[in-house]
Amino acid sequence: MTRLTSLRNEMEKKGFGGYFTMSVKNIYYLTGFKDISGAALSLIIPLDGTPVLLTQPLSYVAASEKAEGCVVKDVGFKGSFLGETVRELRRLKAERLGFDDLTIAMYLSLGEKLGGSMKLIHSPETVMRLRRRKDEREIQYIMRAAMLTDEGAEAGIEAVKAGIHEYEIAAEIEYAMRIHGSEGVAFETVVASGPRSALPHGLSSDRIVREGDFVTMDLGAVYSGYCCDITRTVTAGKPSSKQLQMLDTVLKAQREAFKSIRAGEKTRSVDDAARRVLEEEGFGGSFIHGLGHGVGLDIHEAPTLSPKSREVLEEGNVVSNEPGIYIQGFGGVRIEDTVWVHRDKGENLTKAAYHKR
Amino acid sequence: MTRLTSLRNEMEKKGFGGYFTMSVKNIYYLTGFKDISGAALSLIIPLDGTPVLLTQPLSYVAASEKAEGCVVKDVGFKGSFLGETVRELRRLKAERLGFDDLTIAMYLSLGEKLGGSMKLIHSPETVMRLRRRKDEREIQYIMRAAMLTDEGAEAGIEAVKAGIHEYEIAAEIEYAMRIHGSEGVAFETVVASGPRSALPHGLSSDRIVREGDFVTMDLGAVYSGYCCDITRTVTAGKPSSKQLQMLDTVLKAQREAFKSIRAGEKTRSVDDAARRVLEEEGFGGSFIHGLGHGVGLDIHEAPTLSPKSREVLEEGNVVSNEPGIYIQGFGGVRIEDTVWVHRDKGENLTKAAYHKR
Repeated sequence: MTRLTSLRNEMEKKGFGGYFTMSVKNIYYLTGFKDISGAALSLIIPLDGTPVLLTQPLSYVAASEKAEGCVVKDVGFKGSFLGETVRELRRLKAERLGFDDLTIAMYLSLGEKLGGSMKLIHSPETVMRLRRRKDEREIQYIMRAAMLTDEGAEAGIEAVKAGIHEYEIAAEIEYAMRIHGSEGVAFETVVASGPRSALPHGLSSDRIVREGDFVTMDLGAVYSGYCCDITRTVTAGKPSSKQLQMLDTVLKAQREAFKSIRAGEKTRSVDDAARRVLEEEGFGGSFIHGLGHGVGLDIHEAPTLSPKSREVLEEGNVVSNEPGIYIQGFGGVRIEDTVWVHRDKGENLTKAAYHKR
Repeated sequence: MTRLTSLRNEMEKKGFGGYFTMSVKNIYYLTGFKDISGAALSLIIPLDGTPVLLTQPLSYVAASEKAEGCVVKDVGFKGSFLGETVRELRRLKAERLGFDDLTIAMYLSLGEKLGGSMKLIHSPETVMRLRRRKDEREIQYIMRAAMLTDEGAEAGIEAVKAGIHEYEIAAEIEYAMRIHGSEGVAFETVVASGPRSALPHGLSSDRIVREGDFVTMDLGAVYSGYCCDITRTVTAGKPSSKQLQMLDTVLKAQREAFKSIRAGEKTRSVDDAARRVLEEEGFGGSFIHGLGHGVGLDIHEAPTLSPKSREVLEEGNVVSNEPGIYIQGFGGVRIEDTVWVHRDKGENLTKAAYHKR
């Protein structure tokens, strides 16, 4: 079944006469044409008949070559992108139009111009429901991204030493991924050392790593548009006994969570498996985020693994498994792998070493 | 005058009793606290009284340390981010609430919960009007980003040779920026060679550069959150006479546009200065995008330089100047610098060589 057919099944269930997306990632998913983020593209999908992809001149040639299963139209250098989009949407003659994330400006304009004639229904889960179950080709792309991510993690672990700037470690990580073929970074690389390792969103700074520091590195490569995600925490020099205890505890929590990963498992139970270990070891209050998230074209997508999530893992999901302990003023540890969900188990796609050799 | 005071002047003009932003960049601009893109933050600004910044636990410590001129509140690991945001917005007791870009989901939720009691007015230009005029500190950051961008461009030009993959050139460019202190890339690096150089959104691929190819490299560094933007096009080996003509024409067009840059000039006149040169040389139809865009916390922001734009340059604007010629099947040339707008002239902040030595 093609993705378009699957989408139409979803549309039919929801009573949508048409579906509209400007998401560069959804358009890549549905047509195979990948533009840069921020490009103006409109994909208009009737329940029956050929979808239309509207582009601006600077995307038109590439779109014509790559986009499958749709007609590609150029709005022209002087044409109105909004005007042409509205015209195509009117042609659908749909009573109910499903759509996913747009800018507020676009949404308000569409409401004004179309609100009288069709009902606009925000329904991003229509495509996400398909995207969360990865097919064989998508898994191959994520596996390739995982190999590149491992290259980055190993280069980062190798680079950690007293005297180096955090951003220099980030440079080595990103270079290792890029030179092996990563399309860039899946997200802003985190290299957070010393007390900064207690900041989950620490990014990298010009701080100089000192002997004995924790260094947390959270990074990801991209291949054919697909992301991967890994975190490693090592120390510059020998870890103290408290550091060792934190490292061992987080690794144990991560392994317990991993063991519970399989299709049919509740996402919150997987979170709970890690959280219980941290609580038992006295670090419960220090794990201040959910255990993980889906990984695919977006670095954060469905499903979510957290105490609040009410989802169930499916075969073909790819999720991060990333428990952490954050002690303000002292430092933090996070260990993360990207896991492919099978019928009866999980499979770690990232395989970089957990320790500095 | 602080940025908050300037914002309140704008709010008063528009009759806003409050302003609401979840934009990580606007929050950095207004408070000095920079989180990662995608972080959940709400900044609620009353016309009088202290603004409130709501964070999740994983951002709270960093926000408390860095955010100025506001009270920072943690919604807690089990708290509802939406619920707390609505509660703070209700406290404003504003009749009219200005806001900028939100997700559609957030916008619809706010409309449902607040629509009865206050008028929600999408007004992203309220903050952008301030952001487009850079102050001294912002210019310093952009200048630093420009130096890092030049490092990237020079490394890219140096790396161009027959036999190298496009992505390897991208790796060298990004490493050079990063190792000197860039916070990452301002946007996905473009390395488009041979016929691919005719694609303005070409990104980089695994194509191997051949002798005689055009190689267009479009790249940018980031410093303290501020972006910079440069494009250079060189040939692998000696350019042909047609390639030389294209390179010279684009450079001439870029210089003519540069000469017209000053405060008070219409943005479309600057575009026109470049476009006229390309038309006179017979390449008019090949320049299929606008001449430039503002550069700052976003890589594309106000003002826009294009035939359709109806803006006027101001002192303190920073804009890109990037004419191009794209001939499908043959190749393309784009040359771009980032320009600081003064009262009576422009100043190129990027200074990398235009040619391979």
